[in-house]
Amino acid sequence: MPDKPSRRDGRRRDQLRALRITPGWQPSAEGSALIEMGHTVVLCAASVEEQAPAWRRGRGAGWVTAEYDMLPRATASRRARDREAGRIASRSQEIQRLIGRSLRAATDLPALGERTVHLDCDVLQADGGTRTAAITGAYVALRQALAGLVNDGKIGRIPLRCAVAAVSVGLRDGSLLLDLDYAEDAAADADFNIVLTDAGDVVEIQATAEGAPFGRERVGEALALAARGMEPLFAAQRAARR
Amino acid sequence: MPDKPSRRDGRRRDQLRALRITPGWQPSAEGSALIEMGHTVVLCAASVEEQAPAWRRGRGAGWVTAEYDMLPRATASRRARDREAGRIASRSQEIQRLIGRSLRAATDLPALGERTVHLDCDVLQADGGTRTAAITGAYVALRQALAGLVNDGKIGRIPLRCAVAAVSVGLRDGSLLLDLDYAEDAAADADFNIVLTDAGDVVEIQATAEGAPFGRERVGEALALAARGMEPLFAAQRAARR
Amino acid sequence: MPDKPSRRDGRRRDQLRALRITPGWQPSAEGSALIEMGHTVVLCAASVEEQAPAWRRGRGAGWVTAEYDMLPRATASRRARDREAGRIASRSQEIQRLIGRSLRAATDLPALGERTVHLDCDVLQADGGTRTAAITGAYVALRQALAGLVNDGKIGRIPLRCAVAAVSVGLRDGSLLLDLDYAEDAAADADFNIVLTDAGDVVEIQATAEGAPFGRERVGEALALAARGMEPLFAAQRAARR
Amino acid sequence: MPDKPSRRDGRRRDQLRALRITPGWQPSAEGSALIEMGHTVVLCAASVEEQAPAWRRGRGAGWVTAEYDMLPRATASRRARDREAGRIASRSQEIQRLIGRSLRAATDLPALGERTVHLDCDVLQADGGTRTAAITGAYVALRQALAGLVNDGKIGRIPLRCAVAAVSVGLRDGSLLLDLDYAEDAAADADFNIVLTDAGDVVEIQATAEGAPFGRERVGEALALAARGMEPLFAAQRAARR
Amino acid sequence: MPDKPSRRDGRRRDQLRALRITPGWQPSAEGSALIEMGHTVVLCAASVEEQAPAWRRGRGAGWVTAEYDMLPRATASRRARDREAGRIASRSQEIQRLIGRSLRAATDLPALGERTVHLDCDVLQADGGTRTAAITGAYVALRQALAGLVNDGKIGRIPLRCAVAAVSVGLRDGSLLLDLDYAEDAAADADFNIVLTDAGDVVEIQATAEGAPFGRERVGEALALAARGMEPLFAAQRAARR
Amino acid sequence: MPDKPSRRDGRRRDQLRALRITPGWQPSAEGSALIEMGHTVVLCAASVEEQAPAWRRGRGAGWVTAEYDMLPRATASRRARDREAGRIASRSQEIQRLIGRSLRAATDLPALGERTVHLDCDVLQADGGTRTAAITGAYVALRQALAGLVNDGKIGRIPLRCAVAAVSVGLRDGSLLLDLDYAEDAAADADFNIVLTDAGDVVEIQATAEGAPFGRERVGEALALAARGMEPLFAAQRAARR
Repeated sequence: MPDKPSRRDGRRRDQLRALRITPGWQPSAEGSALIEMGHTVVLCAASVEEQAPAWRRGRGAGWVTAEYDMLPRATASRRARDREAGRIASRSQEIQRLIGRSLRAATDLPALGERTVHLDCDVLQADGGTRTAAITGAYVALRQALAGLVNDGKIGRIPLRCAVAAVSVGLRDGSLLLDLDYAEDAAADADFNIVLTDAGDVVEIQATAEGAPFGRERVGEALALAARGMEPLFAAQRAARR
Repeated sequence: MPDKPSRRDGRRRDQLRALRITPGWQPSAEGSALIEMGHTVVLCAASVEEQAPAWRRGRGAGWVTAEYDMLPRATASRRARDREAGRIASRSQEIQRLIGRSLRAATDLPALGERTVHLDCDVLQADGGTRTAAITGAYVALRQALAGLVNDGKIGRIPLRCAVAAVSVGLRDGSLLLDLDYAEDAAADADFNIVLTDAGDVVEIQATAEGAPFGRERVGEALALAARGMEPLFAAQRAARR
Repeated sequence: MPDKPSRRDGRRRDQLRALRITPGWQPSAEGSALIEMGHTVVLCAASVEEQAPAWRRGRGAGWVTAEYDMLPRATASRRARDREAGRIASRSQEIQRLIGRSLRAATDLPALGERTVHLDCDVLQADGGTRTAAITGAYVALRQALAGLVNDGKIGRIPLRCAVAAVSVGLRDGSLLLDLDYAEDAAADADFNIVLTDAGDVVEIQATAEGAPFGRERVGEALALAARGMEPLFAAQRAARR
Repeated sequence: MPDKPSRRDGRRRDQLRALRITPGWQPSAEGSALIEMGHTVVLCAASVEEQAPAWRRGRGAGWVTAEYDMLPRATASRRARDREAGRIASRSQEIQRLIGRSLRAATDLPALGERTVHLDCDVLQADGGTRTAAITGAYVALRQALAGLVNDGKIGRIPLRCAVAAVSVGLRDGSLLLDLDYAEDAAADADFNIVLTDAGDVVEIQATAEGAPFGRERVGEALALAARGMEPLFAAQRAARR
Repeated sequence: MPDKPSRRDGRRRDQLRALRITPGWQPSAEGSALIEMGHTVVLCAASVEEQAPAWRRGRGAGWVTAEYDMLPRATASRRARDREAGRIASRSQEIQRLIGRSLRAATDLPALGERTVHLDCDVLQADGGTRTAAITGAYVALRQALAGLVNDGKIGRIPLRCAVAAVSVGLRDGSLLLDLDYAEDAAADADFNIVLTDAGDVVEIQATAEGAPFGRERVGEALALAARGMEPLFAAQRAARR
Repeated sequence: MPDKPSRRDGRRRDQLRALRITPGWQPSAEGSALIEMGHTVVLCAASVEEQAPAWRRGRGAGWVTAEYDMLPRATASRRARDREAGRIASRSQEIQRLIGRSLRAATDLPALGERTVHLDCDVLQADGGTRTAAITGAYVALRQALAGLVNDGKIGRIPLRCAVAAVSVGLRDGSLLLDLDYAEDAAADADFNIVLTDAGDVVEIQATAEGAPFGRERVGEALALAARGMEPLFAAQRAARR
């Protein structure tokens, strides 16, 4: 993979967009973080409920769940609110299930105890990669909320087994690009969403051929690119702990 | 009304909370403003659609409509999203109808032409006075969007007849207080929401006895307090024009 | 305000339409009243439930709540039922919240005990002023239901602190008119809905500029007109007690 | 069938309850009738729309459709409105389909022309037999609306082929009873709803064993009882024409 | 009734279509049956829940309830799923209420004990007579599930009082035809759905004039035709017991 | 990967379950197939609509879309129908989006012309792998429907670029297993759903760590296992063409 700039915004193929994580942005929540990746901005909040969901009670373990939504004018043209249709958009459903699974994979649910953590990920501005930004930001909000439980003496240690973060990779004209913005995503031949731990292990990978099906070897290459490219995300998550 | 501090946060009875309006906060929209009044934060976006609503077409006039919602964790405890219930909360319905009426009162609808402006007011943090902050902020977003139409040569002048802003007034232990925060609002005996023009005329007034009914003369006093107290709001709206 | 007739139907500016209240119209209910104001006809029923709403239990106090709806052919053209859309019309939501607040303001909720009174206000014919007629009629149904609780020995006295009634006032061509019918309402420059106690105190006031914003002094004038004009409503409520 | 009184309210087995039909009760509608059968009261309105339903257009024929609902406090205990659940109660669905089919059977749809008549049947008080009262009353409202079309010169004659009316029959302890009230209905072993023309022909019959299945010969007996017992219904429909 | 073939498919007027019942088709259910009548195919499943419905608890008796639905492409043109509209089609509501009533009539609910049996009737292919096929097949599924309860020692005997089956009868050009297929049903002047016990008693009869109202004597004739024609249905139900 | 049997049902790690595809099972549809993989049974139907979806019109290209649902008693315990909740289960949403994307990847949409093919995948019995079976079966139904368009002379050739099929792979105790049944799936540490073309290229891959995150090299191994194991699926698809 060459190092020379090759993208509309001057980034190298393996370069993330400008990243900023502001922890505690929504002070009414037990945990929160505003994550900005380029022009994508997601507000993540963690709310702790002192009981497990009804269907999990009595097992001595907790649960982590997520909701994902977008403000109507986060996008270039206005999008109607889900409440108008009386149902959650299927794309949002799919994304929030992914966020929930990803963060549960990082959490030691028995150590959390019979509690539920609700992760609300609301996209304030959308320029591609909102689901991966939401995962990276939700981890910060989750950790802040869990640290609060430790501070309050409710649990003895932060019940996390690893950090998780996520990034997109795209395939275009035979090349793999890290962290697509909206215009790049719309033009990609294939789209990968990759969720890894800070040890480089796989939490989730979803790859879809948008145009022609692609060779199986591409999957391993995309994983390697993501693993290398996500280092700054884990560093920013650590910096947000203070 | 005495000038000595008499409120939990040290404000005088006729004093607004700290105010900041950031125009253009959501750059994907034709107009936008983030309004902060104390700990209340509302993001207002204006979207221009190049046609009137179906039921208004062919009259040569435009329309202004509003939607109001709150992020789940804008409040001290988490509130479920409307989409879960499949219906808009009745409180939100009532508020967004008020916002829409208020901004239409300021707009020269025939001069707008057959267009619809959608005003999205999303509460990011709630500490009382979200509906009045939304009206004040929505005016800034609306003006920015209309100025854009003038810049694009679509209309010859900004089709606004006046500025509108809003504030709450509360009655407590016989005294009227300007711009209640959440704790003050919860303890008030009566609650006024007042929408005025920058000429001091009435766009809308809603007054409700939360406890005992109150004397009719209170209504005039509350209007006078609001008219005086709203000066900084109109000044901040003007400053946001740049 | 001159006394000479100045309205399409020959009424003076400060004159109510023909009024009739028939208590006990719906005998299956604990309380009921059919109220007719001109061609507006609303059936009000009060149902007593022997527990407080779930969110109020254990406080030793009761609750009063209202629902408002309209038969499809109460109006000049047929209007689809809310159940078709699967959601309550936002106008109805707003009105039923107003009715509930108004009647709660009259009720001594602790003296009611842990009970809920449901007030159903169904418009059988609509010619303007349905929300104010509903409030005036609902008071009669509520009082009848509460008197029944006394008769049954469940409570010692009727837990009402005052009577409440409501009327609309309109501003047209600079003049204020009492109790608008539909045609007058459609032509008004501003519209006031005023809920008062029989002592003349304010329970709720809502004023909206339909056309141009109006001077603040108009609010006090409208209140005075309503206070004077509502005497026959309180008299009819008293006559309905028998 | 003996003539001596045998029922709680002193009626003979083949005797209808007290019947009153008030045509034109809801003057805003093209046709309307309030029908009272004992303590059952149903308001029927007919609304004419000057086009056929979308799925019937271009066939040169009209359509008749019905909706059925009940006020929340028409019954001894309060029943939640359908709009709360966001769906029409299945019992109401079934009844309104029956009303629609019954009135279409009486109507000459091609002679009606490409129009839709909406029949709204709203139960104000319910004491058994609401669906059959609705059919009998809806016929009066329909005829009034159709006569209006003739008066307006839109059609040359009233496009009805016959009158239709309906009544219930119940089987109890081996005897058949005409026109059940609520208490009789709840105690019946089988329940018949019978819709006939004024010529005595069958439009619809529904018979259900509530308890044990019953002999086939009962069906013919119930039809004969209904045919004889419905004479006063057709007479009242004719009297309501004036 | 002549014996010579008189129908498009060569059947005699009193002849059923080719019938096959395959019990146990859906092995995950406590009881199931695939019923084929000509080209109509319905899959019926019985599920036993070890409690009565909430509104029936504490009476020492059970309940039987049914749901009816159709695969989108069971019919000649594709039909949208009910979940798209968010409500059950009114036709399906009506049919599933009929199925539930019919099977409850056959069941000794006190002997069933505080259990609920859910009968799911899903039409895989539709060629007329789906509701009657569903009743006939649901009986087989129900009996299999109840026999399972006996085998498991939960109840001492199968709590059924009789067998029930159903068939349609149509009136066309003055003749009555047994077991209509879709084309015959569409052309019929009147349509009967008849549910009988194996002793020939009536569980339910519904008769509707699709065209002109018909003579009352037709009802008895249709019942007699159905009673004679349903023998093979009861025989197939018995054969399915093995 | 050893060849000796290592699974509860005696299968080798790389062995599919018993497979049967019955094309044309639902004759009312343009294309259909019943696919059985072990105890999983899915009925797939293809319906051709002679226009593109509204949002795609005028581009000269077609569309392929899918719906996925499950009969209530396809599973060991009964599951409520989506229509009860008035919304599509989020799991079904996610699966039907996957099916639609997968089949579109195989289709030459411009060559299809402005048509929509609806693929209905209804699970009659569920024992794991329902989404992958649905993709494999939907391809057969789609091809049959497209061949019908060629037969009818509407298009010149079958607009498919390749065949697609799908299979699951699971990771358990460090080993990868092909085509999990329900019990294996519930016990797996990670779950892969892999959609490939008959040329071995990737259409979609989704991999989720259900327990601990797993090494990145596993993804390539799972792809290789799927590619090898899917040969019989493509063979069965070809055999179903006849």
